[in-house]
Amino acid sequence: MAQGQHPIYQKLEQLGITLPPVATPAAAYVPYAQSANLIFLSGHIARKDGLVWTGQFGKNISTTEGQAAARGVAIDLMGTLHAALVATGKDLSYVTRIVKLMSLVNSTGDFTEQHLVTNGASELLGEVFGNAIGAHARSAFGVAQIPLGACVEIELIAKVG
Amino acid sequence: MAQGQHPIYQKLEQLGITLPPVATPAAAYVPYAQSANLIFLSGHIARKDGLVWTGQFGKNISTTEGQAAARGVAIDLMGTLHAALVATGKDLSYVTRIVKLMSLVNSTGDFTEQHLVTNGASELLGEVFGNAIGAHARSAFGVAQIPLGACVEIELIAKVG
Amino acid sequence: MAQGQHPIYQKLEQLGITLPPVATPAAAYVPYAQSANLIFLSGHIARKDGLVWTGQFGKNISTTEGQAAARGVAIDLMGTLHAALVATGKDLSYVTRIVKLMSLVNSTGDFTEQHLVTNGASELLGEVFGNAIGAHARSAFGVAQIPLGACVEIELIAKVG
Repeated sequence: MAQGQHPIYQKLEQLGITLPPVATPAAAYVPYAQSANLIFLSGHIARKDGLVWTGQFGKNISTTEGQAAARGVAIDLMGTLHAALVATGKDLSYVTRIVKLMSLVNSTGDFTEQHLVTNGASELLGEVFGNAIGAHARSAFGVAQIPLGACVEIELIAKVG
Repeated sequence: MAQGQHPIYQKLEQLGITLPPVATPAAAYVPYAQSANLIFLSGHIARKDGLVWTGQFGKNISTTEGQAAARGVAIDLMGTLHAALVATGKDLSYVTRIVKLMSLVNSTGDFTEQHLVTNGASELLGEVFGNAIGAHARSAFGVAQIPLGACVEIELIAKVG
Repeated sequence: MAQGQHPIYQKLEQLGITLPPVATPAAAYVPYAQSANLIFLSGHIARKDGLVWTGQFGKNISTTEGQAAARGVAIDLMGTLHAALVATGKDLSYVTRIVKLMSLVNSTGDFTEQHLVTNGASELLGEVFGNAIGAHARSAFGVAQIPLGACVEIELIAKVG
């Protein structure tokens, strides 16, 4: 891709990550909305091989699998963020801060490792954007369920220059 | 009402919607807080005939009822947004974007249609504000419970001009 | 402390509150991120005597205990906010508004007093900052679990001058 020269895209290529196109929302909303220099991304649910990655932690999916699922959501979020920026003639190199994640982890009342699951997303964002831009505030917690039975859903706020 | 001339208020009238006054919070907080041109609305819980609309999806309330409940919450949110704007000499015609919804759906561990429930709110906002302003980012997910047993709680961020 | 002259710090001293240092996040993220004049604080979990304050409402912890836990989280949030401001040569007297709280209450499907639990945080913020600055928008709801089994987790957005 043309943006291949910027370190962010180099890092993605080096990690073997291909950004997906923007996922079509499952319902009556849009993948992102921008207000001044903040881009608010909708909650993105985990997917595997194009299908919803289902599961409930504490019941039928492990923390390690959850980290892979959360990492996958981070890739989808970067895909949406890339598309949002390209739509205004920019790209991911204009991100000045990943501000905040909200990570929803589909959990039984016994599972308490939502923070470890969410690290799969947080660590990738730190790796791709570098610490100064990629380090973000975060809330992670266990929810009773997620649309379509997805194991993880993450929303993101980014600041762009 | 005086704002009846603007298309937003015409649309509300056409839909037979009367905006309610701001709901009194059930606790030690306020219905909204503004920061520059973003208005953050508190989570509004579903009500029916003035009482809390209780229920837990997967147990004792249907998706269709939930869509009506979510639509009702959207009306209450617009009532609060209207009041917030009137307090500074403006009205809903100054909304430049419905930025984001967070929709909390009171769910058992088996219910996976939080997105369909939430569409009751999202679709009304799109209808009233039109797509360019009303289309919003969104997270919808199942929570273990909601204050007073309400079936749905929604918070909203709007950008105003 | 040097900031002792400002009414906010006088109030903290009068309440016998010593602000803690910033809590080290349990995972790959940071305690806060700033974008223009908004500071987004990560979800802070309840602690008691330096340990995670565990419990699930509806099962093994009371609403009254939860109010004390939420009050403790508000103190930790103020500690982080203080540190965030000191890092840029300011202090809590530069807070122009506590904009919004998101309060996650570890709940069984039967517990419906998340708003009362959360009041423990909201009331303290109102008391310390005064109503004009401390009154905030808020969402409080019951979640299936919280990292490390904490009974309450709260995130906060503040506006600074």
